[in-house]
Amino acid sequence: MHIAIIGAAGMVGRKLTNRLIADGALNGKAIERLTLADVVAAATPAGFDGQVDIEAGDFSDAAEIQKLVDIRPDVIFHLAAIVSGEAEVDFEKGYRINMDGMRALLEAIRHAHIADGYKPRLVFTSSIAVFGPPFPASIPDDFAPTPATSYGTQKAICELLLADYSRKGFVEGVGIRLPTICVRPGKPNRAASGFFSGIIREPLNGIEAILPVADTVRHWHASPRSAVGFLIHAASLDTAKLGNRPNLSMPGVSATVADEIEALRAVAGEKAVNLIRREPDELVMRIVSGWAEQCNATRAKELGFKADNSFEDIIRVYIEDEMGGIGG
Amino acid sequence: MHIAIIGAAGMVGRKLTNRLIADGALNGKAIERLTLADVVAAATPAGFDGQVDIEAGDFSDAAEIQKLVDIRPDVIFHLAAIVSGEAEVDFEKGYRINMDGMRALLEAIRHAHIADGYKPRLVFTSSIAVFGPPFPASIPDDFAPTPATSYGTQKAICELLLADYSRKGFVEGVGIRLPTICVRPGKPNRAASGFFSGIIREPLNGIEAILPVADTVRHWHASPRSAVGFLIHAASLDTAKLGNRPNLSMPGVSATVADEIEALRAVAGEKAVNLIRREPDELVMRIVSGWAEQCNATRAKELGFKADNSFEDIIRVYIEDEMGGIGG
Repeated sequence: MHIAIIGAAGMVGRKLTNRLIADGALNGKAIERLTLADVVAAATPAGFDGQVDIEAGDFSDAAEIQKLVDIRPDVIFHLAAIVSGEAEVDFEKGYRINMDGMRALLEAIRHAHIADGYKPRLVFTSSIAVFGPPFPASIPDDFAPTPATSYGTQKAICELLLADYSRKGFVEGVGIRLPTICVRPGKPNRAASGFFSGIIREPLNGIEAILPVADTVRHWHASPRSAVGFLIHAASLDTAKLGNRPNLSMPGVSATVADEIEALRAVAGEKAVNLIRREPDELVMRIVSGWAEQCNATRAKELGFKADNSFEDIIRVYIEDEMGGIGG
Repeated sequence: MHIAIIGAAGMVGRKLTNRLIADGALNGKAIERLTLADVVAAATPAGFDGQVDIEAGDFSDAAEIQKLVDIRPDVIFHLAAIVSGEAEVDFEKGYRINMDGMRALLEAIRHAHIADGYKPRLVFTSSIAVFGPPFPASIPDDFAPTPATSYGTQKAICELLLADYSRKGFVEGVGIRLPTICVRPGKPNRAASGFFSGIIREPLNGIEAILPVADTVRHWHASPRSAVGFLIHAASLDTAKLGNRPNLSMPGVSATVADEIEALRAVAGEKAVNLIRREPDELVMRIVSGWAEQCNATRAKELGFKADNSFEDIIRVYIEDEMGGIGG
């Protein structure tokens, strides 16, 4: 089996690569080849005996995407995106990378399908940012996406394209709406959601963290390990079960900032909690007020997608996977 | 006031033009100029004292659209589309006309907005084809579009683009999801919905009509006169009331084929009904089984959009407007 990852150099892409190599197989088939594509060259992964191709390029560009489709991967994970904050500031770049890139990929696949029947599994990472307020406390699977950001709009459009190209039989698409990934390792990115990770990650590492919103803010979370699990499961499931609705809200953990802080206290004690400094930021508060608090994720759960059990578990995943804990 | 209509040569476009000329004003402002754009030249309308420009061209083409935006209409009605049947058969043409055309229009408006603050009212005709099964008997305003056709997908994508460009302040967008327009005058077009009109129109004109589906099929209808009323109202309403959700399911009349036939009997008698010949068509039945039966249209009704009162009224509109009745 030949697996391609677009966005392989990002945090989730690296973890997915490592998981695939550790598993050695996907859906019962041995992995013989990995194509790791991103705008910067992904690191060569350790411990893999098969062929690895590292492709650095602009994968919103039709020519780069054509090269990828020319080598006919059996499974394509499309993780590449400009994050919400950047897509809001740079309107044209957001549409180019987040929407035109996906469309070019689908078009290349369609032409390959017409040429020789090629029909890969395409797993697309969407986001709960497709939902905009007002919405119910827990969002049902059939709730209309009315995004409050350009990023969410681009993701919602990609979902519609994925569904139509799948319905027409050009591709086996599965779109997964990821909760906010938490705790992200490393440095903050330009996502406005960064503080959800920061108020856990920084204190665990003995560093002060800024909390820009109220303790009552509720949001929808999944660990990086769960996100990788969603991707693997999406690549393996029987798409016949999806009907004409291949886009699924993923399960997660609904937690307030106060819940996060209590979980941090339970796992790492008062000293860690004392490193959180409240510094309200009107812009971040305004952005976050438009975000979903919870999804029912009924279909995804019925289809076997599994999230973390609690926010404490989310913190423990970070400690295990990033701080030399008992491993993952 | 300068009004442009893209798709002016079509049935709704012609009726909208005539209504605007009859009214002489839109939202209290005198209409001084009409630009009538379509792939074929629209007829020069009678009874208008102002400037009329007839533009024939491919209005999915960025250069043609740029010319239209260069003359800065105050209001643009975008009615142009490849119909559902054709978009399903010709995948590329459907996306080019129905999606790329709208995006090019929004991009031209955005660039004009950046250049000089131009911000027209843009009324976009979407469709209940954005909804795909399974759906409830009456579809709520916040129900997720999961289209069962490429046409519906293209309309749903245009809605998302319209909402995002409006949210960013580039345009004053209003998207209206039209019910199936019935009774359409003239010849059938390539829409699979044609029989809904045919079984009324042909018998009223003494001609046999084919009914390809069961009498129990329920669908969502509005007369051409109501559709024009929706467009005028959408061009006039206060968009501040729409929040970030400028796309609205329009009100209509929910009727089964049997209801249609009873209304025909009430208006035109048994002789007309006897001209309906049942000839089941598997393809049409399959397509129609994926169509919405009714929309709540709660928001649209609260915003003042008004539909026909009954299917008998829909038939009477046809007799008045198309058969030399008492006129409309």
